[in-house]
Amino acid sequence: MSSLQTETDIAGYCRAIAGQAKAASRQLLSVSTDLKNRWLRASSERILRGVDGILAANEIDLQQAEQLGLTAAQRDRLLLDPKRVEQIALGLVEVAELPDPVHEVLEESVRPSGIKVSKIRVPLGVIFFIYESRPNVTADAAAIAVKSGNAIILRGGKEAAHSSRALVDILRHTAVEIGIPVDAVQLIETHDRNAVGHLLQLSEFIDLVIPRGGEGLIRRVVAEATMPVLKHYDGNCHVYVDAKADLNKAIRIVENSKCQRMGVCNAMESLVVHQSVLSQFLPLLEQQLQRYDLEYRADERAIRCLTNGKPATESDWSKEYLGPIMSVKVVDSLEEAIEHINRYSSKHTEAIVTEDRQAAYQFQRDIDSSAVVLNASTRFNDGGQLGLGAEIGISTDKFHARGPCGLKELTTYKYVVVGDGHIRT
Amino acid sequence: MSSLQTETDIAGYCRAIAGQAKAASRQLLSVSTDLKNRWLRASSERILRGVDGILAANEIDLQQAEQLGLTAAQRDRLLLDPKRVEQIALGLVEVAELPDPVHEVLEESVRPSGIKVSKIRVPLGVIFFIYESRPNVTADAAAIAVKSGNAIILRGGKEAAHSSRALVDILRHTAVEIGIPVDAVQLIETHDRNAVGHLLQLSEFIDLVIPRGGEGLIRRVVAEATMPVLKHYDGNCHVYVDAKADLNKAIRIVENSKCQRMGVCNAMESLVVHQSVLSQFLPLLEQQLQRYDLEYRADERAIRCLTNGKPATESDWSKEYLGPIMSVKVVDSLEEAIEHINRYSSKHTEAIVTEDRQAAYQFQRDIDSSAVVLNASTRFNDGGQLGLGAEIGISTDKFHARGPCGLKELTTYKYVVVGDGHIRT
Repeated sequence: MSSLQTETDIAGYCRAIAGQAKAASRQLLSVSTDLKNRWLRASSERILRGVDGILAANEIDLQQAEQLGLTAAQRDRLLLDPKRVEQIALGLVEVAELPDPVHEVLEESVRPSGIKVSKIRVPLGVIFFIYESRPNVTADAAAIAVKSGNAIILRGGKEAAHSSRALVDILRHTAVEIGIPVDAVQLIETHDRNAVGHLLQLSEFIDLVIPRGGEGLIRRVVAEATMPVLKHYDGNCHVYVDAKADLNKAIRIVENSKCQRMGVCNAMESLVVHQSVLSQFLPLLEQQLQRYDLEYRADERAIRCLTNGKPATESDWSKEYLGPIMSVKVVDSLEEAIEHINRYSSKHTEAIVTEDRQAAYQFQRDIDSSAVVLNASTRFNDGGQLGLGAEIGISTDKFHARGPCGLKELTTYKYVVVGDGHIRT
Repeated sequence: MSSLQTETDIAGYCRAIAGQAKAASRQLLSVSTDLKNRWLRASSERILRGVDGILAANEIDLQQAEQLGLTAAQRDRLLLDPKRVEQIALGLVEVAELPDPVHEVLEESVRPSGIKVSKIRVPLGVIFFIYESRPNVTADAAAIAVKSGNAIILRGGKEAAHSSRALVDILRHTAVEIGIPVDAVQLIETHDRNAVGHLLQLSEFIDLVIPRGGEGLIRRVVAEATMPVLKHYDGNCHVYVDAKADLNKAIRIVENSKCQRMGVCNAMESLVVHQSVLSQFLPLLEQQLQRYDLEYRADERAIRCLTNGKPATESDWSKEYLGPIMSVKVVDSLEEAIEHINRYSSKHTEAIVTEDRQAAYQFQRDIDSSAVVLNASTRFNDGGQLGLGAEIGISTDKFHARGPCGLKELTTYKYVVVGDGHIRT
């Protein structure tokens, strides 16, 4: 939006966007589930019909990718083809099929005073979502927000500007057609960095900000935001191989947790091994994982059991490598494993491999992370896998939402008290 | 704690307190409901037996009250007598009788992949609670925190230092006796203002801060805290008397909402009246409330129906008077009432008086406050009245907890995933 020249212009633009979002969020309170679902399905159809326009917009983004200095991986995330557009369209239908969380009665009782008290799930209001290059995220986030009754302000990456615009245009046109408030979905059209700063001050309009991206972005948002932030810093996920582990399961789980997709937040970064299985397990593991060409940053005892281990430094215990490196720590007890993990983990996902039910229970109870996994891969901590349907992010906070955030996690509640002239005595 | 002279001393003291609290919170994870309840009941008995010591400590606080410049009302809040001590002891038993929220299974399912997913309620960890003079709050807060599995750091007002100390001593001695981690309850013993600042930086140990007190304190905490804050700024609560109101109920409800206790957050501050009942309702109300000697700050139309109305200014619409003043606004429609209330309310408690079910539903749906009340007093928005049992505060935030905060509101959840060698494909 080249017409926004001055700081005052940008501030005014942000204020207008936020005000419109708040007004739309109020209108959304009286929109039925059926209407929201009709909007999702109609938008899905329009995206399928509009595939050529979307690909043309994406082509413009791709032409600018080199100029913006995108890596091959970033360019791939940006790229749309007919199959990917179809997936975007399908994603909207999947959200339509999820139950509507709004108006759910969470608790209900009649009190001794005679009043009836209900605790009812309601939307948060306005969500400000800051994200990076993938165009599919634009449609997913809008679908999740509106299905849960919220208006959303989207601030995507500059590199996907045309693709995102094309998708948002379809969502908004369909909204007008179907009768959903059009400003329920808005895209910030200036890439001036200050726009984010202005929006983060507008807590009177915006109820929640969700930054999805690098740590720098998230720290900036946390520092500047005047409204709550739903965030996830990183995923330093652990697998602990217990004294009573089935080592075949352990190898399969470590391989899947670490190697199935290395660049994701629920991939394993740190392996913790009980000393009693160390000399048997590590050589087997190294052999099995040979083809991945991993680097092992290990403590002294682990190095002795590896052909290829390098000494770990203190900073390795808290690192999220997102690539072919893992740290390896040896412990003498379950308690030591728990202590090590609670100290260095980013409270995302931690797994234990054991046949000992008591050890599994203790691990589950004492590990302070959003997901604790017994005899399965860390990769299961994902909205789809856990059964939340679509997700807008994974929270490593405890407060308000933890773990994958889907429809319910974008709601709050209110108490509704019904009397018939009741007063307090 | 006069031995803490330097900034470094205070910083180290705060760090030690916070670290001890975190360690205690980890130990609390394996403490049974039964043990927590035994601690609450034994502490209650010890408080009853130790009444003389508590009153002696309170006497010291009272002697210093004048020196500290306490008002009569503040002095009264500080004062303990045998009956008030008995109430404190009873409060602990009441918390023992509440269900334990920890380990509650919130959701459970087996996913198509074969993994079993449970969403389980767990404690937050460490709560930092900042509050003012009333000694009973010390015991209440400690009981609610520990029953919900959390360690608590208490920072009470200087004016109640000896009374709080006496109560905390009993709670801690009983903890040692029963086998509860002693540092589950700690009292900050320096009244250096910087101690709060240091603690607000320790997000590695402290999971939540709850400031209870004046707006200045809360704003300071919000600005400085590096962890989430559960807060409640003020309670500008409204009663809306609809076109279809039963005016007898309306008078009873306004009287109770405004006059039963004027200095509390769930008292009514603003009256909103539909124009069609205005000329009938306002004179009746003024007559009924005569004995309270109220000041009415009203808009033009309302002034015409009052013998004693003064013109309201813009700032009156958002004011929390906490005394014998109310603002009176006239509206032409339900929609205008909702808009006025959403604009000026502090999102605490709003009531509608009406016999029109559709109007009641619309008000309930569109009012963005923690509690919406139909044909009953705003004074019902209170943990005890709503059935939460004891409460540690009332949140005007939407995120994470809203309205009265009891045991459940001091918890979060974790996902527990159980497989048998399951990996993601």
